[in-house]
Amino acid sequence: MRIEVICTGDEVLTGKIVNTNFSWISQKLEDFGLSVTWETTVGDDRDDLLLAFQLAGQRADAVIVNGGLGPTVDDLSQEIAAKAAGVDLVLSSEWLEKMEAYFARRSRVMPPNNVKQAMLPAGAEVLDNPVGTACGFAVQIGKARFFFTPGVPRELRRMLEGEIIPRLLAKSGKQTAIHLKRFHSYGIGESHADTLLAGLEALAPDGSVKLGFRAHYPQLETKLTVRGSDMDEIRVKLAPVEQEVRKRFGNFILAEDDRTLEGVVIDELANLDATLSLVETFTGGQIAGRIAHLPGAEKIVRRGVMARDIAQVYSAVGLDPREAGEISRESAETVARAAQRNTGATHALAVLIEVDEGADRLEFAGTVCLAIATAHEVASRRSRIVGGRDWVRLGAIEMGLDCLRRYLQGLPVYERIDFEKVE
Amino acid sequence: MRIEVICTGDEVLTGKIVNTNFSWISQKLEDFGLSVTWETTVGDDRDDLLLAFQLAGQRADAVIVNGGLGPTVDDLSQEIAAKAAGVDLVLSSEWLEKMEAYFARRSRVMPPNNVKQAMLPAGAEVLDNPVGTACGFAVQIGKARFFFTPGVPRELRRMLEGEIIPRLLAKSGKQTAIHLKRFHSYGIGESHADTLLAGLEALAPDGSVKLGFRAHYPQLETKLTVRGSDMDEIRVKLAPVEQEVRKRFGNFILAEDDRTLEGVVIDELANLDATLSLVETFTGGQIAGRIAHLPGAEKIVRRGVMARDIAQVYSAVGLDPREAGEISRESAETVARAAQRNTGATHALAVLIEVDEGADRLEFAGTVCLAIATAHEVASRRSRIVGGRDWVRLGAIEMGLDCLRRYLQGLPVYERIDFEKVE
Repeated sequence: MRIEVICTGDEVLTGKIVNTNFSWISQKLEDFGLSVTWETTVGDDRDDLLLAFQLAGQRADAVIVNGGLGPTVDDLSQEIAAKAAGVDLVLSSEWLEKMEAYFARRSRVMPPNNVKQAMLPAGAEVLDNPVGTACGFAVQIGKARFFFTPGVPRELRRMLEGEIIPRLLAKSGKQTAIHLKRFHSYGIGESHADTLLAGLEALAPDGSVKLGFRAHYPQLETKLTVRGSDMDEIRVKLAPVEQEVRKRFGNFILAEDDRTLEGVVIDELANLDATLSLVETFTGGQIAGRIAHLPGAEKIVRRGVMARDIAQVYSAVGLDPREAGEISRESAETVARAAQRNTGATHALAVLIEVDEGADRLEFAGTVCLAIATAHEVASRRSRIVGGRDWVRLGAIEMGLDCLRRYLQGLPVYERIDFEKVE
Repeated sequence: MRIEVICTGDEVLTGKIVNTNFSWISQKLEDFGLSVTWETTVGDDRDDLLLAFQLAGQRADAVIVNGGLGPTVDDLSQEIAAKAAGVDLVLSSEWLEKMEAYFARRSRVMPPNNVKQAMLPAGAEVLDNPVGTACGFAVQIGKARFFFTPGVPRELRRMLEGEIIPRLLAKSGKQTAIHLKRFHSYGIGESHADTLLAGLEALAPDGSVKLGFRAHYPQLETKLTVRGSDMDEIRVKLAPVEQEVRKRFGNFILAEDDRTLEGVVIDELANLDATLSLVETFTGGQIAGRIAHLPGAEKIVRRGVMARDIAQVYSAVGLDPREAGEISRESAETVARAAQRNTGATHALAVLIEVDEGADRLEFAGTVCLAIATAHEVASRRSRIVGGRDWVRLGAIEMGLDCLRRYLQGLPVYERIDFEKVE
């Protein structure tokens, strides 16, 4: 079954509001094994609305239209739906009574322009809206069944779940389930990941697992979309594939599904009853900024200090600033040990960065020296990251948190990553 | 000129990612007096991509296509563009060399599958991408000029501003010049701002100034779009209107045009040859994270400390932790003074926050006590912010930086804002 969505309204078309209604509709349909194949956004314009309805009516089996059911003059959905369906607009006395009752319950008199909301294409099927005055409805346009929904998110959600999805499932006559499995990694570029996972889709039968990526530097998200008749079948199909992803990516997988790197770090520390002290330079507090505000962090993140000057860093952790020298693995280790002792935290992470001089440019690089100290040991690594000021800073934040994750999980703090320059 | 946008990719079509690229493109074009009339989203599907390109090529004068230029098998934009234009895909040696240089600068060998990114429709015009390997290009399909752009937001933005908007403006042949004047404020809500600026557009002749807002909490952007025959005429029309905005918003304007709050703070401190020490609690390093990495900040931001526990805060600034009591204006003043003395900075900002207990909810509130100290004086304020954990944290970051801006500019640190709850 081919499903399309048409979003209407100048506010969405001009970008004044981000179209979260569409992403919500599409995700919700995916949850029920239904897929949207085409989306169109048009403004509050009669010609464009009519053309959009006609084109979708030629291509699709079902169309969900969002917006344009309000009481004001720029709400045109009913009028154009009637025109596209070749019928008249008629007053729905059923909906008019519902609206009058709706206002009466709120001790208000219905304004006259709300009558417009009860004008529906002749023969339309009413879709109930228990939380507002916009009347949903379904009509046939071309070869497609059109479902008209309100733009107000909570009204849309109630109507989609309560009225439209049951009709779509009945119409599709199939009950397939779909599941999205996600892996988050740091240190592997998208094309490298694509190469590493070559042949992966073939591990599941008849194309039921589809591989995809989403790169948002510094992290990469690897996604497996799995289809089956139900969740049990999906689990069976997914098992060998997800095992293979874990094997091929190894220690680079930092979290799966809805978990985040900072969440994993906080959880690992909480499991150990551990506390954390942080020391930053060029990342300027942004490592702390990723974790210190999270629920539960108030018991774990003991202290963070940040300074751009290495002598200030030494002072801030109780070392003699006159002993501060070059940024190196050794100085990072010294600072991490001092921060751990000084604050009484069980763990300290120090991320010291020597950045290039001069203006930002693609070749702008930074040398990251980081160390993780406990009362008993210290681990460290040195990496050179190239690619501009932001690239270096964002890479160093992720590297700091990911090395801490690795340390807490008993994995090697150093493994070569795709974003570092080997000298 | 009729402009359409086509967004491609399963991630957008299935709603896994919200389509912020589209709203950004549309807003950016509006800023230049250009309007998008139709948007289409299709997945990584050859038939649907081809149909979408053909339909837009029949309707529009210019089409911006976003996404599908990556190195992996599901990136289909070049292939389908060539098919729709009726030409072959050919290797662009110009782009191949650029990519090889890009990888060489990062000391990496280009993976073989990246070659795909240099395959362009024959006769395509290259649109430069200075920040990535995806090659933008322009081709004619039907009666429209198509502009193909990468899905990675920062690459899209550079290409749209640098390559595409100038071509669209030239193509539109508009004789009129357009100028966008922007004011950034903190503490005034959108509907309050709308009321404050009532009648503003009437100060310029014949509707040549259009007022708009973009709320991105905690800041509000107020935009004046001005049309005229050239920049001289625009300046004349704009002058009385922008003066009026400054008068009505008063001390709430924190920056204009491309300037940012953090940039203004850094510049004010630099002008005074001043240095800064920061103390944070629930904001967890995110105030420091806004300014410490900026160019020039290495000489200004002397030290930042962050702790979730008030006793730890006292220790971190050299005070006796046993003297730490409740969070109040007084304790914020004590901490700010100590941070200033302790680090030898000319200025210290302390933002202490008492947050509610329990789960996140709309009524979740925080009491922000902040103080700004120099060797000679201290200024402070107390505010209660309600609206959930993120709302409190983001509001406190902005309040801290904006109060510092006010202090440095000789303005009152306290003026009532729309986001605080008066008890």
